[in-house]
Parts: sequence; structure tokens; C-alpha cells
Amino acid sequence: MSTTITHEDLGTRIEEVLRRRFAERAVAAEHHGAEFAALWNEAAQHALGGKLLRPLMLMELFPALATTVPTRRETEGAIDVAAHVELLHFAFLLHDDVIDGDLTRRGRPNLIGSLVARRPDETAAAALHWGRASAILLGDLLLSTAVLGFARAEVSADGRERLLALLDTTVFETVAGEHADVALSDGIVTPDLRTILATSASKTATYSFVLPLRAAAVLAGASAEAEEQLTQIGTHLGLAYQLQDDLLSVFGDPHAHGKDAFSDLREGKETAIIAYARMTSHWPSIELRFGTADLSASDAGDIRDRLRECGAERFVRGLVQEQLTAVSTVLAEAEESGTLSPAAGRTILAIADRIEGRRR
Amino acid sequence: MSTTITHEDLGTRIEEVLRRRFAERAVAAEHHGAEFAALWNEAAQHALGGKLLRPLMLMELFPALATTVPTRRETEGAIDVAAHVELLHFAFLLHDDVIDGDLTRRGRPNLIGSLVARRPDETAAAALHWGRASAILLGDLLLSTAVLGFARAEVSADGRERLLALLDTTVFETVAGEHADVALSDGIVTPDLRTILATSASKTATYSFVLPLRAAAVLAGASAEAEEQLTQIGTHLGLAYQLQDDLLSVFGDPHAHGKDAFSDLREGKETAIIAYARMTSHWPSIELRFGTADLSASDAGDIRDRLRECGAERFVRGLVQEQLTAVSTVLAEAEESGTLSPAAGRTILAIADRIEGRRR
Repeated sequence: MSTTITHEDLGTRIEEVLRRRFAERAVAAEHHGAEFAALWNEAAQHALGGKLLRPLMLMELFPALATTVPTRRETEGAIDVAAHVELLHFAFLLHDDVIDGDLTRRGRPNLIGSLVARRPDETAAAALHWGRASAILLGDLLLSTAVLGFARAEVSADGRERLLALLDTTVFETVAGEHADVALSDGIVTPDLRTILATSASKTATYSFVLPLRAAAVLAGASAEAEEQLTQIGTHLGLAYQLQDDLLSVFGDPHAHGKDAFSDLREGKETAIIAYARMTSHWPSIELRFGTADLSASDAGDIRDRLRECGAERFVRGLVQEQLTAVSTVLAEAEESGTLSPAAGRTILAIADRIEGRRR
Repeated sequence: MSTTITHEDLGTRIEEVLRRRFAERAVAAEHHGAEFAALWNEAAQHALGGKLLRPLMLMELFPALATTVPTRRETEGAIDVAAHVELLHFAFLLHDDVIDGDLTRRGRPNLIGSLVARRPDETAAAALHWGRASAILLGDLLLSTAVLGFARAEVSADGRERLLALLDTTVFETVAGEHADVALSDGIVTPDLRTILATSASKTATYSFVLPLRAAAVLAGASAEAEEQLTQIGTHLGLAYQLQDDLLSVFGDPHAHGKDAFSDLREGKETAIIAYARMTSHWPSIELRFGTADLSASDAGDIRDRLRECGAERFVRGLVQEQLTAVSTVLAEAEESGTLSPAAGRTILAIADRIEGRRR
């Protein structure tokens, strides 16, 4: 009854569950007219083909936390929950894009951009309204589908309660983090380092790291203590990930990371890098052109150099290391007390290594 | 152990559950900054104090469907589910207001309007962005809270599966209906009568009528046949309700119904009234000023008179009667076959009577 599944197989199987979900919905959508069916088909193209970081993290940790080798049925149950973690991610992305007014993601049209492109004969405002309304509604449906997926997971009654409590906390914290992020970008709260880190922890770490790690723990029947430690570990991993993301956007190679070069500088995104730079004597010269939409590549390169000179790059690289060191510290304690197995420790360290060595 | 609760008591108790929910969230929100806590307090003011039509409908039908008098505990469980039906309603309203660009509801500022008013020093665009982003995010959280509320209902395993399947269908149909409604108002689909009625059935009838009626059936342990009949009854009731709403907006007394007089005519809302008028020789004279934002009261009165003359009012009043007759027909069959009790029948007829005699 035991199963050994490779990383690639897992990705394929998670995709299969997602593909089936979208196909079922597209069929049901046909009863509600061609436009609604078209929305589902378009959405499937955007939701599938991703890197599946979050569900794969869950599926890697799940067998490492289990005290016995998971049965085929348990593995399938975990894959199903993992697929719903990905749906939750896609739902948040859709609403994030509406809020940020984005029409692209990683240089390609996002769902809103694709829907707008399908209406060339309409005014830009009308096409945008249609694209954004569709993204809000589809996001609602996927969010509700994700919660229902957790509620229907094939686990014990106690396991389901834990999964639902986890999801409740996750959505609350993520929404709080997104709200704080909007407050930062709208200039409603002061963009100091503490606020920026707290926002990243809520917005990114909670659903992208803490959720998959804790869900793996619940599915594997791990203790409440293990869940608590994975919450700490996930928060540190998530912060390290977000800080690396901020560093890549400014100092990384755009050919490797795939995002628009310097888009964070053009958008005036309040990151830890900027929060540090604000406290230095270099800030007045950076501030002049920071957040200008038509920032030239040479001016952006100039800002990047000043951010390096003022020590912001070094400072944030230090923060990444601090977060990763904190992961090791919690992990050592957890292994010593026997709350987390050595196998779980190795899986988590492998995730930390991937974040540290990230180029995209 | 039995309980007899009056209509007023029920309303108070549903409000209590909602009030407690918002208070808990507001406390938790304080950890995420003053802005997020303020959002919750503002939201509570908008979400509470409503007529609670949907949860009250559930709570009236629940004991009528039960074969034995519900225990205090069963009644409390039903009140909890009913409160989550109201949260789902509020979540949909929030996103609906974002999509429609509305800042008021029934002549008073809605949540977005209130949030915009709190930012007098900002540009209109910035204040609107803040209000709408907040409404999207809060709607997400309440939608997820509603689904979690259903998932945690204190019912048998079978009952929970049925509740979750019901909610899944409800959210899917409602989103499909909202999407079709946007397609209608954006001029993407043809506003014929069939499309308009199908849209109203999905958008309004499903979550406002079918959901509370079927949830009552599941909570009372009624049969799948009863649920099926309540689906039909709820769809007819919901259509009658929406058609009455359309009639009131054009032909009713604005002092009684509380909405802006003639707002549907100013917005160019595609209703059954308009779909009928389009097919008559009066349409060219109506079309001239239909959907103009600055329509004067006298011009609006003129359109109203033409809609009466062309037979649209009479036609739609006929549709309302048809839907209410269909309710009676399904009910008679259900009572004859013993699927629905006479007490359930009386409760449903009382709801139908309230829709028929609606003045607001």
C-alpha cells in the first residue's frame, strides 16, 4: 500500500487534480452562457502551468512528518488539499491584480489582460470593467472552492477541525496583510521597516509558507507543538523569500527572474530595501526619481547603484540570512525535543537552500 | 428542552451572533494596525441593523420542516448557520458595489462610501482606490468566513456534506448570475427576456431564497426530495421578489421603498420591464432618454408612463403572479405526496404573501 512518488510525478498529479477541477467547472459553466464558459477556459490557462511551489512544499513535507509511510489513499487526500492551496493562491492573485490595476504578471498578460484583449472593439474603460469584474467574481468562486476543498478533506473529525482553523487564520492574516500593503502603497501608513516586515509576514509568509507546512503537519497527524514550530519556520522562510524577491527585482538579472527589470522602482514599491535607504543620507538623491512610471533604464541603474552604496542591499541580504538562521535555530530545537523528525528537518533545510540560492 | 421563539427574538439572536463575530474579528484586527481595526468597526455598522430576510426565512422554515420539535441546541446550530447566510449576503453586496461602482445603498453611503468619506484630504481617485480595495478584501474574508461557518455547523456528517454541496452550488450559480448581470450591463450579451430572467434566477433567487430554504431542510433532516422541491419553490419566490423589486423601482413610491426614485431608469438597468418594452412600438420614444445619468424627475415620470402604456407594467405584474402560482402548484404537489408538511406549506405561503404585498 505504500507509495514512493518523485517530485515530478507529484507536480503532474497536482496539475491533474487542478485540470480536472477546471474542466468540471467549464462544463457546468456552459449552462450559464458562452461568456461564463469562456471565462473558465481562459482561467484554466492562467492557473495551470505554474511552478506549484506551495502544493509541492506541502507534498514534500507530508511524508517526512508522517510516523508511518502514507497509504495511497492518504497521499491522494494530501494531493487534493495541496491542489486547493494552489487554488487559494490563484484566487488571491486575481484580487491582487484587480487592486493593483495590473494587466500583466511576469511579462505576460494576466487573466484581466487576456480578457481585455478579447474586447478590442470596446473602449478601454469598458473592456477594463469587464476584465476586472470577471476577475473579482472568479476569485470569489475559487476562494470558496478552496475553503470547500479543505472542508471536504478526507481526514478525521479532529484533523478537519484543525485544517479549518488553519485556513481561518490564514485567510484572516493574508487579508490583513494585503490591506496593510494597500495602506503602504496608498501612503496611508508610514513605510518604516517594522511595518514592511510585518506586512510581508502576513501577506506572503502566511499563505505561501505557513499554510502548506502546517497543512502537511495536520494531514500527517503531527502534534500541535509541531504545528506551532512550523508556524515559526514558515514565517521565517516566507520573510526570507519575500526579501530575496525584493533583492532580485532591484539587483537581480531580469532575464533570469522574468519580471520587468526595475518594476519595483518604477512602481515606487515600499520594500525593506527602500525603508533602509530612507534612513540614510543617500535618500534625497534616490527619492527624486523613485516611483516614476517612465523611469529610464539608465536612471533605474543609477538608483540601484545608490541603493547598493547606501548599504541597503547589504542590510537586506543580512536580513535574509537572519531569517534563514532563525529557521535553523527553530529546527534544531524541534529536532532535539523530537517534535520534528530528521526527515522533516532535511526537507525544510532543502526549502531554505532553494530560497537562499534563488535566481528567479 | 423544546423552544418557542418569536420572530423578533429570532432577529435579535441572529444579530447577536453576527455582532459577536464582528467584535471578535475587530479585536483580532487590532494586531494588524489601526486601519484594519477601523475597517472592521466600519463594516460592523454596515452589516448589522438590516432586515435579516434570508436568515429569518431559514429560521421560520426550520422548525416547520422538523419532524420533532427542535432542541435548544439544534435551534442554536440553525441560528449559527442562518447568521452565516447573512454574512455571505454581505460579502456579495460588497463585491457587487465594487463592480457597479456604487458608493451608496438605499440612499446612504455604503461601506466604500463611508471609507471614502474618511479620507477627505486625498484625491478622489486615491480615496476610491482605498475604499474599493478594502471592500474587495473584506468581502473575501467574509465569504471565507461564511463557507467556514457552514463547514463547522453542528450537524451529522451526512448533513454537513449536504450543506457543503448546497453552498458549492449556491456560490457557483450566484457568481455565474453576477457575471451574466455584468455582461448585460456592459452590453456584452443581448438583453432579451429569457436572459434577464435566467440572470435573476441565478443571481438573486439562488442565494437569497433557495439557499435559506434548502439549508433549513438539511438542518431539519428533511429528504432530498424536499430539498429538490424547495429549490423549485425558492427559484419561483426569488424571481417574484426580483420582478417586484424592478416594478417598485419604476412604479413604486420611493418614500416607501427607500431607493433613489427612478435609479433603474437612470442607470439603464436591463430588467424584464425594459425587455418587454423593447418589443413594443413605444420603445423608440423610451430609448431616447433611458440610461441617462441626469434624467430629470419629469422625464423619468414620462418614461414610467410610457412603460405603463406599452403594457410592460401589466406584463411584469403577470409574471410575478405566474411565479407565485407556480409556488402554490409545487407546494400542493409536495403536500399531497407528504414531502413537505402543512406547517412548512403555511410558512412558504406567508413568505409568498409578503413578496406579493411588498411596498419596499
